[in-house]
Amino acid sequence: MSLSEFDLIRTYFSRATGVRADVTLGIGDDCALLNVPAGRCLAVSIDTLVEGRHFLPTVAPDALGHKALAVNLSDLAAMGAEPAWVTLAITLPAPDTAWLRAFVDGFARLAAQHNVQLVGGDTTRGPLSITVQAHGFVDPAFALRRSGGAVGDRLFVSGTVGDAGLALRRMRDNAKIEAEDSYLLARLDRPTPRVALGRLLLGCATAAIDVSDGLAADLRHLCQASGAGARIDLARLPVSPAVAAACGRGEWHYALAGGDDYELLFSVGADQADKVLAACAAAGEAVQEIGCLVDEEGIALVYPDGHVSKEIPDGFDHFRT
Amino acid sequence: MSLSEFDLIRTYFSRATGVRADVTLGIGDDCALLNVPAGRCLAVSIDTLVEGRHFLPTVAPDALGHKALAVNLSDLAAMGAEPAWVTLAITLPAPDTAWLRAFVDGFARLAAQHNVQLVGGDTTRGPLSITVQAHGFVDPAFALRRSGGAVGDRLFVSGTVGDAGLALRRMRDNAKIEAEDSYLLARLDRPTPRVALGRLLLGCATAAIDVSDGLAADLRHLCQASGAGARIDLARLPVSPAVAAACGRGEWHYALAGGDDYELLFSVGADQADKVLAACAAAGEAVQEIGCLVDEEGIALVYPDGHVSKEIPDGFDHFRT
Repeated sequence: MSLSEFDLIRTYFSRATGVRADVTLGIGDDCALLNVPAGRCLAVSIDTLVEGRHFLPTVAPDALGHKALAVNLSDLAAMGAEPAWVTLAITLPAPDTAWLRAFVDGFARLAAQHNVQLVGGDTTRGPLSITVQAHGFVDPAFALRRSGGAVGDRLFVSGTVGDAGLALRRMRDNAKIEAEDSYLLARLDRPTPRVALGRLLLGCATAAIDVSDGLAADLRHLCQASGAGARIDLARLPVSPAVAAACGRGEWHYALAGGDDYELLFSVGADQADKVLAACAAAGEAVQEIGCLVDEEGIALVYPDGHVSKEIPDGFDHFRT
Repeated sequence: MSLSEFDLIRTYFSRATGVRADVTLGIGDDCALLNVPAGRCLAVSIDTLVEGRHFLPTVAPDALGHKALAVNLSDLAAMGAEPAWVTLAITLPAPDTAWLRAFVDGFARLAAQHNVQLVGGDTTRGPLSITVQAHGFVDPAFALRRSGGAVGDRLFVSGTVGDAGLALRRMRDNAKIEAEDSYLLARLDRPTPRVALGRLLLGCATAAIDVSDGLAADLRHLCQASGAGARIDLARLPVSPAVAAACGRGEWHYALAGGDDYELLFSVGADQADKVLAACAAAGEAVQEIGCLVDEEGIALVYPDGHVSKEIPDGFDHFRT
């Protein structure tokens, strides 16, 4: 484990967040020592963000800190897990205290919101890259899996889809930043992990996944794991005005394959749907029914004019050429 | 989470290793779901290896796979933890099936030796970099910390020190590879995590650390955490013939600050030392007494000619200029 930079991270971080009672030993020894509550599983997810692939070199460091944690909390949310601890391995081209302080600010602020403690990490020198592992707790009997969906279940998605993909397109086009773009940019840079929604869905949803690769690609993952197909009513997709305008121009790929949405896509038994909608409304969680699971392979897209197509844009895949 | 490359990793890996009963859900969903045995802590450690910093571009991929896991298992060993699960985040410049297969071979072979299951990961495209988090179990009442040493404790180190540092020097010098170098290179490329030794030391050692930054630097960490100084008898350092020759030329920095040794440095109460030595001998674990903890700040090096110096070479620090 290298030293000085990680000491900085620890210092900034510990100022911004608390200390959990379930941490026997945090940063500073060869390992952290952690306690999982009796009767709960440990849920873990690890993700890497690489400069030029997952974020542009121009990204604000506090936004990057936020996002590096958010994408992992989103995975915990998709299992219905309660976040607890995080480890951070960061590779930096050169020591830059101001950059690192801002990065940790963004990271620590989101961590504090979710009562997450940084318990370990590593700093190395090299091309900018951030790997985060998030750790949470969940009752294994109720954990939301991708595989629990059944034909007839109704499909829901949280928030709005396509904003981050459209923001990235506009940034790459160097389009003038309009008022609506600041909303899109915030969706790209500071996604909101749907942690409370995931926990609310425990025992209600039959299957869930977080939408990171694009709605269509992640729906395909859920369908394959559940052994079902899906039918999606495109007119019902929850979209922001900017993405709605794109859809109106026939550019459905932002909403369906934009990636980086970090919303939850989940299925609910038809007889439970009203109950789940009411619970979400009561909790202030925006969710929208978009279709259902069907007994026919693939994903059928029902366009607003009524025509149906199984041709869907592909999601985000780092290794696709 | 990206797809195709990680599917390859999973396929190769699952052929090489078993499935643990404490894994409720492994790779393939948003999170893995894992069960820590009652009464045990979860011990975690995360480390990144970056090309050009931690390994040369010429390294054999199976050696790299071995080492990426070994350095993390070494951290578990230093706490006396029993390895259980591992996650792997790998960034690759381009898809290369043969390379990846060899990498996973090296990784999985070591994992199988320690009954470690791969439970999650991520693949991204970018400059070659590997981040591994290892997870193990330990009784928190007995876990080996850096901080438990006391004045009068005797200091031991396992195996030999300085081999990897000398190997790296010779590779950088493009020196002709002699017969003795193949031993040194193996020590650099395929370090042996001292997992069994760490577990044997539970309840015996007062403090422990793994020697990754060099003996002197890691001894300083142990001393600072324990609130003691140390006195080291250089004539007693366990070294291979090649490193002994370097020491004979006055080049003590390989043994003291070479880095990448992945041996265990530990302290034992003076009245327990004989018992620990006997237990190590019975278990076939090579350990050597090298000095003791003293009531005087810093590390005093006693040279074979009897002179004492507190000037010690620095260990490996990624962020030192």
